[in-house]
Amino acid sequence: MSTPVPIRPRVLSGMRPTGALHLGHYHGAIKNWLRLQDGHDCFFFVADWHALTTSHPDRDTLSRHVYDMVTDWLAAGIDPERCTLFLQSRMPEHAELFTLLAMCTPSSWLARMPSYKDQVAADPELATYGFLGYPLLQAADILLYKPAGVPVGEDQAAHVEVTREVARRFNRVYAADASVFVEPQALLTETARVPGLDGQKMSKSLDNAIAMRDAPEVTAAKIRTMPTDPQRVRRSDAGDPARCPVWPLHQIYTDAATRSACEAGCRSAGIGCLDCKQPLIEAIQREQAPWRERAAALDPQQVRWTLEVGTERARAVARKTLREVRAAMGLVA
Amino acid sequence: MSTPVPIRPRVLSGMRPTGALHLGHYHGAIKNWLRLQDGHDCFFFVADWHALTTSHPDRDTLSRHVYDMVTDWLAAGIDPERCTLFLQSRMPEHAELFTLLAMCTPSSWLARMPSYKDQVAADPELATYGFLGYPLLQAADILLYKPAGVPVGEDQAAHVEVTREVARRFNRVYAADASVFVEPQALLTETARVPGLDGQKMSKSLDNAIAMRDAPEVTAAKIRTMPTDPQRVRRSDAGDPARCPVWPLHQIYTDAATRSACEAGCRSAGIGCLDCKQPLIEAIQREQAPWRERAAALDPQQVRWTLEVGTERARAVARKTLREVRAAMGLVA
Ligand code: SF4
Ligand code: SF4
Repeated sequence: MSTPVPIRPRVLSGMRPTGALHLGHYHGAIKNWLRLQDGHDCFFFVADWHALTTSHPDRDTLSRHVYDMVTDWLAAGIDPERCTLFLQSRMPEHAELFTLLAMCTPSSWLARMPSYKDQVAADPELATYGFLGYPLLQAADILLYKPAGVPVGEDQAAHVEVTREVARRFNRVYAADASVFVEPQALLTETARVPGLDGQKMSKSLDNAIAMRDAPEVTAAKIRTMPTDPQRVRRSDAGDPARCPVWPLHQIYTDAATRSACEAGCRSAGIGCLDCKQPLIEAIQREQAPWRERAAALDPQQVRWTLEVGTERARAVARKTLREVRAAMGLVA
Repeated sequence: MSTPVPIRPRVLSGMRPTGALHLGHYHGAIKNWLRLQDGHDCFFFVADWHALTTSHPDRDTLSRHVYDMVTDWLAAGIDPERCTLFLQSRMPEHAELFTLLAMCTPSSWLARMPSYKDQVAADPELATYGFLGYPLLQAADILLYKPAGVPVGEDQAAHVEVTREVARRFNRVYAADASVFVEPQALLTETARVPGLDGQKMSKSLDNAIAMRDAPEVTAAKIRTMPTDPQRVRRSDAGDPARCPVWPLHQIYTDAATRSACEAGCRSAGIGCLDCKQPLIEAIQREQAPWRERAAALDPQQVRWTLEVGTERARAVARKTLREVRAAMGLVA
């Protein structure tokens, strides 16, 4: 007799392949994924089709970005034995469900998404059918796996809400007798907003990022050259952490004792900015060290295989759902 | 040494599964397909996803309609040895290309299609994302097979034009060095507009159709009860074929001598309407006889297999194109 396996609730999350991840990605998402993988059946995917909704990257860039990103997932400690890691563009099942859901989804639901309206207003080139359909493709990504929850930041809660509406409508139109889709919960996760080297949100496109796998000396150099309180021109000027872009990083990385010493030293001009930055540099380097180690031990071929295996595992689940969808719609089995 | 096989230009055409076909389908499309299959590499497909863009049929209806329609294709003489007959909904490749083309297709191209604007104005329920994307799904259907031509009626020429624009734009955005897609030609075909039993266009939804495989007595009864010149109330009243809904059928089905005799008899009240209808009934029954024979000889399982085999043949072509598309977009191979 086999021991019953406890059912872990399924969660699903995707990430656009932007290349090597930075500390903002780690604290904004990956850290939460690490927490989730202990008690959940996690499906994490590379949303490479979504990357194409807003840009047309060079031919060689996209696949490099995919593997760099998955390397960072594994480096951070995402465990491919417990999680299903897969690649969206290898799943025609996502495109098929997207196409089928389109048949009962009013386009007004998509056109009214704030993200769409704002971004198209800023860049009319974005007004493609694909970008309009982005939340519906996302709904397909999610609904195929019937997850109980989708971890999201507050800015994406509206997208999960559309997914729920799409599921509800499909169930009503095609599956009145037995629901096909499960409405997923938005798992609002409190995540730290990591400031970049210029005090703005850390972002690759702003070139203000510290990569998860930056070498120790690169991390040190980046922090050392960060601007500080603009009113602290000379070493002898007293400063105020509230005005200093370095300070929010302290709040993420250093302990209360360190912060309190730094704050006092800043306000009294008792320490220089480099003194203040040093414990921060060390804390970030400490966080990065195991990532760099794990990544160094990874064979690129192994990263590819991990994604292959995960993709086939995801496909089995996706196909099962699609069979139910086709049957509900009356399509030839 | 093998004899070189002459290259037949490829053409592609799809048809929505509306169930058993009628004489309007035969003269409007199938007859042209029969001409094409002699000199062309024909891909004919059942557009069952398209059927879902405008209606949500009962669960059992759609697949019955699929097989009834393909039976009519074969009954009419479409030769599965020479043509590739396939089922759209079994081709996730169509959905994948649809999704990928969406990334570079402005939604304004789709919203401005006359067919979309008119139909949505008449029925706001149709304003779904899928119905908006219908011409783009059609572009994907076509471009996957790189056909030289697409046989269309005049009303669909605009759809082929969008397909050409979509192809051109994809080539420009993603494949500047070597085009992926071929711009297909619209093969405008002169087709007879077959009037239905009430004089309007023959259409299943108007319940005015003669099915390709109607039994001889059904055909006879349908024609016999057709209204005629409303001014010919009694047998002794002279009539005018120009006012008679039966007459356009005569023009399709009977020869000049028959028509001239009927016309004279009508104008002079020399013949009754049933006399006039008799040669028409016989002509239609003669056309139907071989269809009914071929259909009777078909095993339903054989129809399914024909579609299976054709679908796999189509898939091989579609996959090759998709590999080129993915490579051009820089997606992981
Ligand atoms: S001492 Fe620290 S908090 Fe104060 S200005 Fe310098 S870096 Fe900023
Ligand atoms: S005789 Fe023929 S053409 Fe004249 S009204 Fe009758 S059916 Fe029509």
